[in-house]
Amino acid sequence: MGGDGGPDVTVPATKRFLADYPDIDVTLYGRENALSAHLSRDPSLTDAVISQRLHIEFCPEVVLDDEPPSSALRNKQNSSMWQSLECVASDNAEACVSAGNTGALMAMGIKLLGLANAIERPAICAVLPGGQGWLYLLDVGANVDCSAHQLHQFATMATTLVSLVENIDRPGCALLNIGQEATKGNKLVKEAAVLLDDDPGLNYRGFVEADQFFSSPVKIIVSDGFSGNIALKATEGAARYVLDRVLSEPSTGSTRNLSKANGGTPLTLDPGRYNGAALLGLKSMVVKSHGGADEAGFYGALKTAARAVTSGVAEGVCRHFEQISQ
Amino acid sequence: MGGDGGPDVTVPATKRFLADYPDIDVTLYGRENALSAHLSRDPSLTDAVISQRLHIEFCPEVVLDDEPPSSALRNKQNSSMWQSLECVASDNAEACVSAGNTGALMAMGIKLLGLANAIERPAICAVLPGGQGWLYLLDVGANVDCSAHQLHQFATMATTLVSLVENIDRPGCALLNIGQEATKGNKLVKEAAVLLDDDPGLNYRGFVEADQFFSSPVKIIVSDGFSGNIALKATEGAARYVLDRVLSEPSTGSTRNLSKANGGTPLTLDPGRYNGAALLGLKSMVVKSHGGADEAGFYGALKTAARAVTSGVAEGVCRHFEQISQ
Repeated sequence: MGGDGGPDVTVPATKRFLADYPDIDVTLYGRENALSAHLSRDPSLTDAVISQRLHIEFCPEVVLDDEPPSSALRNKQNSSMWQSLECVASDNAEACVSAGNTGALMAMGIKLLGLANAIERPAICAVLPGGQGWLYLLDVGANVDCSAHQLHQFATMATTLVSLVENIDRPGCALLNIGQEATKGNKLVKEAAVLLDDDPGLNYRGFVEADQFFSSPVKIIVSDGFSGNIALKATEGAARYVLDRVLSEPSTGSTRNLSKANGGTPLTLDPGRYNGAALLGLKSMVVKSHGGADEAGFYGALKTAARAVTSGVAEGVCRHFEQISQ
Repeated sequence: MGGDGGPDVTVPATKRFLADYPDIDVTLYGRENALSAHLSRDPSLTDAVISQRLHIEFCPEVVLDDEPPSSALRNKQNSSMWQSLECVASDNAEACVSAGNTGALMAMGIKLLGLANAIERPAICAVLPGGQGWLYLLDVGANVDCSAHQLHQFATMATTLVSLVENIDRPGCALLNIGQEATKGNKLVKEAAVLLDDDPGLNYRGFVEADQFFSSPVKIIVSDGFSGNIALKATEGAARYVLDRVLSEPSTGSTRNLSKANGGTPLTLDPGRYNGAALLGLKSMVVKSHGGADEAGFYGALKTAARAVTSGVAEGVCRHFEQISQ
């Protein structure tokens, strides 16, 4: 049903996505009254070109934002979230994109799609502009409490993701901490540092602090879901605050064109370009869009899903954990 | 000795502070060779007006940035950090300002100044621009692991601080979490929420997320030191990144004047205005400056100390905990 913005956001974003990706079909899951209103308002959605590739499935239920995952799992089999995941589970789609309740999406994803071999918990991997192009930060909210072993699995999954999506051999990876020195941090990061450092399959580079996201030489930063979510939200809030102040100054309207001056490097100033966090560790691809995403943001999440499917991320993670557990 | 910038930062900042605060004396503690070079280079430091209020104490040792607090406590009694705290302990000064090793400053502060009655752990309280003027965020790094009881003490200490410094009765206070709903978060924040909500001396307003710092209606946000430090660093890093990109655009030079357009509201764009985090829970005032502070930043930390002393923050916290434990 599409997070805070609902079909006002997801329908136009899907239309743009269908136009830009002519080889991909999309099915929208949602309440009949909400979706029908959009379809009747916009005749282009039912024209010959798009309608062949845009499918609609009406669902009578919706998972609420504050609904506990256990309750959603038990009671919401007729929701848009459950039905869209079941479409992936039955091999009728290759990815599910949702802007809904994260905990419920994760719980239903585990139930309907299953976990990759030996994976204890899936992680949500967000993408930010970093010092080396894109920066992959995980977990950003699926797991409030983590073990060192789980952080090690997150690092391995993200390494597989970055290798496949960006074609980088052994991308640099670090642990989020409150200092760079080995003596700093809590028990969890100190234990995880030993595991990551001992693994020859990882390119472990030590601790990084949250003010180094945009300048760090690493591609991957690993964290428990509580700290990672706080780091991501703080980054988004501060960037938006500063940008709002700058853009509200009459004489600085030209900063709206900042992305033009930026060449190929991703810019934090355009959240749509980095929306869409992959749920890693499931057997198929699920992408979580920001609940508050606008049209550009949800379009970004659809693009993230397309890129992950084309690169074979979910299969790559499954294959990797099959191999190392043999 | 003054953090990353050393006397290049602290000496000019102190000079400006002495000029702006004619009733306050300052003693600089540091290595002879570093301080003497500055004093001989700048004749105005020894002129009649300033020299009467600027005192110099040479110390042969320095606490290193990566030195474990226990080692500093054992071996660095002749350091600038220890000597300046001892000056406060012996009532020859009312506050100590340091940009050095946070853990060592905290450990030496507890040893030399002592804790307020019933306080388990001191907390570091940072100040940011918020939705209601200044926002007080604590703990931002003194305690990597906290109990719910300690978070409750942090809320009480910050409430005393804000009441005294800003003359606000029962300032609003919230807990940092990864969602606003009561079901969200880890065990620690859920337990702390019960304690804060039950205390009639606090104006508890629930959970806030890290992207709400600049818009939240609360004055105080309480966190464990690990998450709080990550939130603070992420905020600083993102603000600096966005601002650097904006200022590097030739046509947007006028954003440098943003603070002028801002009236009385504090601006995140000028870190010097909010540098200086009070160590709450000690019997006397200690202020931690950012290690990477420039002259304006260290001047900000000196101002923070002056304001805290004038308002009687350390005494207020001691008095409050004496009263509630009777």
